[in-house]
Amino acid sequence: MEEIRNSDYQYRVEVCFMPGQYPLYAQDMGIVVVIDVLRATSAMVAAFENGIDRIIPVSTIEEASQYIGREGYIAAAERNGEVVKGFAYGNSPLAYVGQDLKGKTIVMTTTNGTKAINLAKDARMLVIGSFLNLTALSEWLVQQNDNILLLCSGWKDKFNLEDSVFAGAVMERLLESGKFGVEEDSSIAAKFMYMSARDNFMSMLKAAPRRRRIQQLSLLPDVKYCLTPDQSTVIPVLQDGELVRLDTLVKA
Amino acid sequence: MEEIRNSDYQYRVEVCFMPGQYPLYAQDMGIVVVIDVLRATSAMVAAFENGIDRIIPVSTIEEASQYIGREGYIAAAERNGEVVKGFAYGNSPLAYVGQDLKGKTIVMTTTNGTKAINLAKDARMLVIGSFLNLTALSEWLVQQNDNILLLCSGWKDKFNLEDSVFAGAVMERLLESGKFGVEEDSSIAAKFMYMSARDNFMSMLKAAPRRRRIQQLSLLPDVKYCLTPDQSTVIPVLQDGELVRLDTLVKA
Repeated sequence: MEEIRNSDYQYRVEVCFMPGQYPLYAQDMGIVVVIDVLRATSAMVAAFENGIDRIIPVSTIEEASQYIGREGYIAAAERNGEVVKGFAYGNSPLAYVGQDLKGKTIVMTTTNGTKAINLAKDARMLVIGSFLNLTALSEWLVQQNDNILLLCSGWKDKFNLEDSVFAGAVMERLLESGKFGVEEDSSIAAKFMYMSARDNFMSMLKAAPRRRRIQQLSLLPDVKYCLTPDQSTVIPVLQDGELVRLDTLVKA
Repeated sequence: MEEIRNSDYQYRVEVCFMPGQYPLYAQDMGIVVVIDVLRATSAMVAAFENGIDRIIPVSTIEEASQYIGREGYIAAAERNGEVVKGFAYGNSPLAYVGQDLKGKTIVMTTTNGTKAINLAKDARMLVIGSFLNLTALSEWLVQQNDNILLLCSGWKDKFNLEDSVFAGAVMERLLESGKFGVEEDSSIAAKFMYMSARDNFMSMLKAAPRRRRIQQLSLLPDVKYCLTPDQSTVIPVLQDGELVRLDTLVKA
């Protein structure tokens, strides 16, 4: 497909709709943005915004449970949208808002988000995206000289509307720069979904059936918070298996 | 998720974006519509429209090659968008237009479409969808009393724009009936994609990078043909491993 690469943009920005497809999209990608809008990556940005020092994403409940009650640690575990029994925290961003979290470490496992992080942990650079840090993230991404993959966490390996719409929002800002181009149909589709959703985002999400489930779980305040852009300028980045703030990252 | 099922529609219609996701969507689905707009399922409808008797979808080039030169058979094989060496036919629908195909059998293998058919061959009913038979197919589907899965063939296991937009077109017609509802985010997304594409379908597809490749392969006449709705009322259906016309199907 040489003819496609022979284009006038310098770098590619692509969207991968679900973690299971990651191996098909990972090639030549330098920066991976992990997205789990409802709610893992939103909670991560909120936690940093509220003073947390670092977040250790783990795959299993067992790993996270070893930190319950440990000095300086917050153990957080979510499965199927609910806090796992025995844990005080799940993946709700509002649980971190207004807390004194300075210097603390969160150890977190979630249904989809931490799974996607672990899948892409060998990328040259892995950062965390959510509506909370949309503008800060997009402005930073535009300045990078590398191919960028927007990796949606999905819902149990299936396609997920809010992650894809967010990817479309980032996509649009990167395409505007003229520096980035796309090759994948999924990337075009994400941009079209964002354009459809832009002016009536909540109503588009309400059209999605899982939204009904969220309302029944009384998570609407969380959802509204997660869909409100630009509440933070923090960009979490993975360093040696731990998420830290990009602005505190010590360059290797 | 009992609360979701407790809705006012009778049956579900869902979209699966790529064959690799089929096992996640297949449960409770009675009718599977296999979609490979560019170009396998368009070619199948075109072939029936031009008199062909039946189509045997096979997975390998080797299986198809055994029918080269055999009386009454047309052997067709496509890989990576091109006719496989040694075959007279690939997946171009225009190759069948204006031919005398009465009574003949096509044995066909393609990169994506026949793969999706073989994957879903154990569904209670498997039919073939393309823009060529959009209205006939949708009107028939609306009359069925079963859950319907619109299975996009994708492109080498990746998401594909034209299949998803077509699925959205069928989806919209089925939702209008009030008889069908959705639970999956992918289904909502397909409908939004179709709504974005409806009035400028060719330009949306031109935005997709693979379209540039298609133009370079001189396939534009084929693409235009495949995107022209309602050229046929034929609905191909799988019976004992062979595709036949639904209107000639002997009820078991």
